[in-house]
Amino acid sequence: MSTSERGYHHGDLRTALLDAADTLLDSGGDGAVSLREAARMAGVSPAAAYRHFADKEALLGALAARHFAAFGLALGQAGGSRTALGRAYIRFALARPGRFRLMFGPLLGRVEPGSPLARAAEATFAGIEAASPTRDDALRAWGMVHGLSHLLLDGAIREKDADALIDRLIV
Amino acid sequence: MSTSERGYHHGDLRTALLDAADTLLDSGGDGAVSLREAARMAGVSPAAAYRHFADKEALLGALAARHFAAFGLALGQAGGSRTALGRAYIRFALARPGRFRLMFGPLLGRVEPGSPLARAAEATFAGIEAASPTRDDALRAWGMVHGLSHLLLDGAIREKDADALIDRLIV
Repeated sequence: MSTSERGYHHGDLRTALLDAADTLLDSGGDGAVSLREAARMAGVSPAAAYRHFADKEALLGALAARHFAAFGLALGQAGGSRTALGRAYIRFALARPGRFRLMFGPLLGRVEPGSPLARAAEATFAGIEAASPTRDDALRAWGMVHGLSHLLLDGAIREKDADALIDRLIV
Repeated sequence: MSTSERGYHHGDLRTALLDAADTLLDSGGDGAVSLREAARMAGVSPAAAYRHFADKEALLGALAARHFAAFGLALGQAGGSRTALGRAYIRFALARPGRFRLMFGPLLGRVEPGSPLARAAEATFAGIEAASPTRDDALRAWGMVHGLSHLLLDGAIREKDADALIDRLIV
């Protein structure tokens, strides 16, 4: 048999669960994600979901790693300049707040160095570092775009035209 | 009578509830704060607590405004240079993660412009602006120290000697 519960091919259920978790994440943040609810949305039992993810933390970790991959792609497509990278970074955060908060949330501090999530986060920095003269300069630039993302997302900086602000600040 | 339930003088219960909420915040983040639990810790009924704070959001807002005041004091004591301000900013965040996350969390985006919390956050930026040549320059500097705070807090930047990193990056 090449299909499992409810006709999912091997591997497809994992993807279906991540897709469901994404829907929950985009609508209500990581607090709204549950393995049980993702299983319900995918039309399988909780037990079937637990065969793919040991717990909610594992599900969120896989989800964050997936979004780091999409984020890396978006930054890559922006072109190699640090200005373009920085602007794309903030725009991704503003367009996908739930994903951005999950990716860079406290989960990242809890995973082991060398884990898929830790390596995905490191790849983000590697891209900024490649576009910067020194490592410290890259850390400052990362701090700036990351901080502006948070300050805009959380309402500490209230700006009607965020796009114009991003273009003006990140040069 | 100058005392109310369980002998609190007028105004003291409010302070006692905020102190209790702080203990909860420092131990478990804003998710751990509840008006009911703060009332229990202060030795009063939930009804007595509700006379001071309409709901958890009001309690958290008052708590965030209180911490912005302490934060402003810490930044003021650091001296007027932007380097000193920036270093003090990140060190406050690392020393008091729960308070920092609450102060700059999504709550800030939900309060009305002109509210005590919104004005407290604006005062933080005013201090950075006063030490910067232009407003845009101040926004970039704010972004950098805010982003480095988050990246260090959340484990995206893992650094054994955070103090040395702060001194090296913020110059």
